[in-house]
Amino acid sequence: MKKFLNTADTYLTDALAGFAAAHPELSVNLESKVVTRARGPVAGKVGLVSGGGSGHEPLHTGFVGEGMLDAACPGEIFTSPVPDQATEAVRAVDSGEGTVLVVKNYTGDVMNFEMAAELLGEEGLQVETVLVNDDVAVEDSTFTAGRRGTGATLLVEKIAGASAARGDALSEVAEVGRRVNAASRSFAVALTACTTPSAGRPGFELPEDEIEVGVGIHGEPGRRREKLRSAGEIVSDMVDAILDDRPLESGAEAIVVVNGMGGTPLSELYLVYGEVAALLEERGVSIVRSAVGDYVTSLDMAGCSITVCEAQEDFLPLWDAPVNTPGLRWGV
Amino acid sequence: MKKFLNTADTYLTDALAGFAAAHPELSVNLESKVVTRARGPVAGKVGLVSGGGSGHEPLHTGFVGEGMLDAACPGEIFTSPVPDQATEAVRAVDSGEGTVLVVKNYTGDVMNFEMAAELLGEEGLQVETVLVNDDVAVEDSTFTAGRRGTGATLLVEKIAGASAARGDALSEVAEVGRRVNAASRSFAVALTACTTPSAGRPGFELPEDEIEVGVGIHGEPGRRREKLRSAGEIVSDMVDAILDDRPLESGAEAIVVVNGMGGTPLSELYLVYGEVAALLEERGVSIVRSAVGDYVTSLDMAGCSITVCEAQEDFLPLWDAPVNTPGLRWGV
Repeated sequence: MKKFLNTADTYLTDALAGFAAAHPELSVNLESKVVTRARGPVAGKVGLVSGGGSGHEPLHTGFVGEGMLDAACPGEIFTSPVPDQATEAVRAVDSGEGTVLVVKNYTGDVMNFEMAAELLGEEGLQVETVLVNDDVAVEDSTFTAGRRGTGATLLVEKIAGASAARGDALSEVAEVGRRVNAASRSFAVALTACTTPSAGRPGFELPEDEIEVGVGIHGEPGRRREKLRSAGEIVSDMVDAILDDRPLESGAEAIVVVNGMGGTPLSELYLVYGEVAALLEERGVSIVRSAVGDYVTSLDMAGCSITVCEAQEDFLPLWDAPVNTPGLRWGV
Repeated sequence: MKKFLNTADTYLTDALAGFAAAHPELSVNLESKVVTRARGPVAGKVGLVSGGGSGHEPLHTGFVGEGMLDAACPGEIFTSPVPDQATEAVRAVDSGEGTVLVVKNYTGDVMNFEMAAELLGEEGLQVETVLVNDDVAVEDSTFTAGRRGTGATLLVEKIAGASAARGDALSEVAEVGRRVNAASRSFAVALTACTTPSAGRPGFELPEDEIEVGVGIHGEPGRRREKLRSAGEIVSDMVDAILDDRPLESGAEAIVVVNGMGGTPLSELYLVYGEVAALLEERGVSIVRSAVGDYVTSLDMAGCSITVCEAQEDFLPLWDAPVNTPGLRWGV
C-alpha cells in the first residue's frame, strides 16, 4: 500500500486534523468526529447535516459552510457514523427551526441516522430526512437495500443548502432535496479498485484490461466486468443506463456532474464530460449547469461517475446561489 | 494503460473539447489549442498569459478567467507549446496595455516563449516575462537549466492575475509575479510514476515499497529513491528541503500549497497539510493562507508537492481578490 499516512489506525484522525488546520473557519471535533461551521447555529435558519463513511472527500466534510451543510459527521473509512455523531451534529446546528439530514442509502447509514432522528425527536428537535438513492447500477447489493446513494448527493446538498440559506422552512428544504434526488440518476465505472488504509490492499482484483461497470463508491460490484473499451463506448453505455432508467425528452434541461473517484486526472474527466455532452445533445437535452471534478470519491480509485439531474425551474437559482465550503465555492 | 480515452492521438483534443463544452464562458480553439476568456481583451487591463505542456490540469487552461489568466496555450502532453500558440494567445488578449507571460522554467518552454516574445515585440506589442523556478529539488536536470517551475505557478498566476485585474501597469504586474516566485519554494514526492497516453506505460519504474523524493512534474528524477516511510517523516524532509533553501524566521507569514499530482486522494493531501502546519508552527511560522488540492498535476501520478511562499503584505489582498476560473473560484 502506497499512501501518505502515519499509521492505518490514525489515518482518519490525522487527515481530519489537517483539514481542521486548513479550514479555521470550520470547527472540527477530533474526538467525536463532527465538523460544524465555527459560529454555531444560524438564527432563523433550518439546519442541514450530512454524514457517512469517510474516504469520499470532499464529501461530506468539505461541503460544510455557508450555503451548504451546517455540519457533517464522518464515520471511519467506508463505515457509517454512529448515532451519537449525528445527534451531536444536529444539536450543534439546530437553531430551533429544525434540521434536515441528508442520508445516502446504505443500510448502516440509514439505520444509524434513523436512530439519531428518533433520539432527537424525543428531545423535541424537529428532524426531516432526505434519502439519496440515485445509482441505477444495481438494487439490493452489498451494504444496500434498494439503490445506492452516490453523485447526486452533491446536488442535494448544494440545492437544499441554498434553500435553507435563503430561509425556507424545514418542510421546504426537505422537499427540494427530495425532488433533486428524484430527478437525478447516476452510474459509475472503475478502472482500478481502491485501497483502504486498514486493508492495505485493493478491495477487489481487476485485471489490467478490465473495468467494473456500475461500481459502487466503496468498490461494491456493479453490473458486470468487461474489457476496457474506448471512452466513447464506455460513456455511451453509462448514459444509456441513466436515461433508460429515467428518460429525458428532447427539450429537457439537465445539470450534469462528471465526478472523479479520487485517482483519475482532471483531463480524463473533461474527456468523459465531452462524450456526455455530445450524447445528450444528440437526444435534444440541454446541459444548463455542469460540474467536473472530484466530489464523491472512493479513496484512490481510478474511475468516474456520471450524474444527470433534470433541472426543474427552482433548482438553478439554488445551484447558482453563493456557497463557501472547502470543496465548492462561488459568489462569496 | 487504463485511462478514459478514445485514442492516444486524440486524447488532448478530446479533453479540450470536453473542457470547452463544460466552460462556455471560455473560448477554446481546438485547432490552434488556445484558450481565452470569451469576451476578448479587457480594455485598459494588462493581459496575463501562460502555457506549457498539457497533463498538469487544471494548470493552465483551468486558470483562465476573471482575476487570473486571460489566455492559456496548452502544448501536447508534457510538451512545450509552439511559439505560434503563444503569439496567438497574446494577440487575442492584448488591449494595448501589454501582456505578461508566465513561463515555467523548462528549456523548451523558455525557448518557445522567448521566440514568441520577440515576434510580438517586432509587431509592437509589449511583453514581459515572469519565469517560475521554485522547485528546490534539483538543478540542471532533465528538460531544465536551473530549477524547475512547479507549484508556485498557482500563486504567481493568481496574484499577478489579481494585480492585472485591478488595473496595475505592465511592469507592476510582472514585478509582483516575480516577487511571488522569488518568495516561493517547492518540493515534490512521487509514490507512483505517471503514464502518458502516447507511451502507454509508466514513465519510470518505482518498486512497490519506494518513493521518488524530489520528483518533477513530468516524472523527472529527483534527489533520490528511498523506502516508503511515514507521512510525518516524508513531509519533514520536504519541509526541511524547502526551508534549508530559503529560511523563514520565526514570526514570518506564509502561504502554503499542498498540491496533489493527480492520483492522490484529498484525504491524504489534508493529512500532509496537517504535518506541514505542525512543522511550520514549531518554527514559529504562521500560515496565513492555504490551498489543498490538485492544481499542478502530473496526469495520474500519486504524489504531492508542498509550496511555501513567504507572504509579503501586498500578496494577501491579491490572493483574496475575486477569481472566477474553472480551477479556482471565489468572490464571484
